[in-house]
Amino acid sequence: MTDRKRGRQSFVPEVPPVITAWASVAGKKESEGPLGHTFDIKSSDTYFGQKTWEQAEKHMQQQALNKLIEKSGLSRSDIDLVFSGDLLNQCIGSSFTLRNSHIPHLGLYGACSTMAESLLLSTMAVGGGFAHRVVAMTSSHFASSERQYRFPLGYGGQRTPTSQWTVTGSGAALVCDSGSGPRITACTIGTVTDLGIQDANNMGAAMAPAAYDTIRAHFEDLKTGPEDFDRIVTGDLGQVGKELLLELARRDGVSLGGKLVDCGTLVFDTAKQDVHAGGSGCGCSAIALCGHLLGELKTGKLKKILFCGTGALLSPTSTQQGLPIPGVCHGVCITGGRV
Amino acid sequence: MTDRKRGRQSFVPEVPPVITAWASVAGKKESEGPLGHTFDIKSSDTYFGQKTWEQAEKHMQQQALNKLIEKSGLSRSDIDLVFSGDLLNQCIGSSFTLRNSHIPHLGLYGACSTMAESLLLSTMAVGGGFAHRVVAMTSSHFASSERQYRFPLGYGGQRTPTSQWTVTGSGAALVCDSGSGPRITACTIGTVTDLGIQDANNMGAAMAPAAYDTIRAHFEDLKTGPEDFDRIVTGDLGQVGKELLLELARRDGVSLGGKLVDCGTLVFDTAKQDVHAGGSGCGCSAIALCGHLLGELKTGKLKKILFCGTGALLSPTSTQQGLPIPGVCHGVCITGGRV
Repeated sequence: MTDRKRGRQSFVPEVPPVITAWASVAGKKESEGPLGHTFDIKSSDTYFGQKTWEQAEKHMQQQALNKLIEKSGLSRSDIDLVFSGDLLNQCIGSSFTLRNSHIPHLGLYGACSTMAESLLLSTMAVGGGFAHRVVAMTSSHFASSERQYRFPLGYGGQRTPTSQWTVTGSGAALVCDSGSGPRITACTIGTVTDLGIQDANNMGAAMAPAAYDTIRAHFEDLKTGPEDFDRIVTGDLGQVGKELLLELARRDGVSLGGKLVDCGTLVFDTAKQDVHAGGSGCGCSAIALCGHLLGELKTGKLKKILFCGTGALLSPTSTQQGLPIPGVCHGVCITGGRV
Repeated sequence: MTDRKRGRQSFVPEVPPVITAWASVAGKKESEGPLGHTFDIKSSDTYFGQKTWEQAEKHMQQQALNKLIEKSGLSRSDIDLVFSGDLLNQCIGSSFTLRNSHIPHLGLYGACSTMAESLLLSTMAVGGGFAHRVVAMTSSHFASSERQYRFPLGYGGQRTPTSQWTVTGSGAALVCDSGSGPRITACTIGTVTDLGIQDANNMGAAMAPAAYDTIRAHFEDLKTGPEDFDRIVTGDLGQVGKELLLELARRDGVSLGGKLVDCGTLVFDTAKQDVHAGGSGCGCSAIALCGHLLGELKTGKLKKILFCGTGALLSPTSTQQGLPIPGVCHGVCITGGRV
């Protein structure tokens, strides 16, 4: 068997799987942001026509999956497997989306790193010959997250300057063993990193060490560096976490400046949209990738990116019990379709 | 690339990965049950020396992982990857176990199907050459589950006859690309199946259709049948769900009688231990597998089993919103080490 493992945390598929199609669904605030023109489906109704916010989240994933299948020209029975997860307790957004769809499903929990985790596992599934066409998908919803993790919206709680705004959106990507489009050429699996941050309103700070750990491992395992990438894209560190990541890299003698962008500051205009430190949530990196980033990789405007999904592995229970916030980050190297 | 996909839902690794070691941790009631002698670590303290039940669950996983590493003769740095998940909101049992362990980690949510899901993904990772040594792990805890899904224990709620008893335990298995032990020769990925069961105290009934769907798919995809197995082992259908599964198969012209066993009725003596319909939870199939079943496969007492992890993909929120309970089941075919 060919050994595809590289270093401690990374692997390289023999034949890089192709992302042949992608789709995104976004809420009102996201659609008014800088990437608004790149989303496939936009809704100004927080409930997306459903009775509850949790059902709205399920509906977004259903719309993303249906749009993806439509854009790819395939039918449901052509999809071999869906990897998906979300932030709702017991990931009901994902499982109810796949209910009675007859599509094989493997559920994930990687918090806001799920878009990267699902792409990484799709690379294993397709790259190992276990499946031909796999969907990587996730979602988040501002209102369902606020009431689950923080306060009921009606309570009108004050937000701290370091807090972030959970993105209402869903993204889905189709990873195939043939076809044309951007390719996944390497992946780095994250470790759970915790430097003791306990402030649940400062998730960027909690995730920055994990992000740097994975970026560093990717460089080391694959003998590469920031100079080999057009962009290093983190999922949802926001402005605070992004600054911390730059500082962690700098102390280690690595300059990420000029290459680093964070989806939390791409999706929203942080100066105008009152989202404090930026966007967050599984949907944040998902809608930035399944539109803007994959679009620029397709046209060749971007040639190579390191897409790093960042997740804060806390729960309201762990916070109430006084525990710190562990972070995780998974890295996926994507190269442009025309390269 | 070699095509390892078979039929709609299954795949067959070219070189079957080997389960070279396994470990289990169990609570008091489980240790008093029929499989008590097969567990590595037994505790009569519900808190496992911790301050909260959630921390106890984390501690069980840590003990299972440490015991597994000890039994395998490896060190932490030899483990390439851990696939794990649990029932706690945001899977904090798993993420806090891996915190600062420096072991790459991919989090899963498959409810009580997690032991099978993690073995299936380990098969992809090892069988595809992406990793050499992977841990598949999960846990559940009676007290943390009761308060999260149902009532605070102090409330003293009555249990219905169809209800099941969440197993307090954790199981971990080491899946390798070489070595001796039982081998994973085929896997079947489940679809999310929902026939409209809404009673959260009758999860066996909610999961039975998913179990049959996966068993049927395994037979169809791999041109096999019950006659080719010593045992078909479901995760936690309990007595009610097991009878329903037998009936679903019978109506389809398939006889599972004599081959079907359910971990929920293996772990507890349902007649004597007051667990109503049987055991349940991620830990149920995990401790039945990582001791009793793998032990019998190692000695050759069992030659071939189809291990079917069953999961009920509900959440308290979905139940409160009046939604039915979708089920999922993943199948892993394991053959004896000496065969």
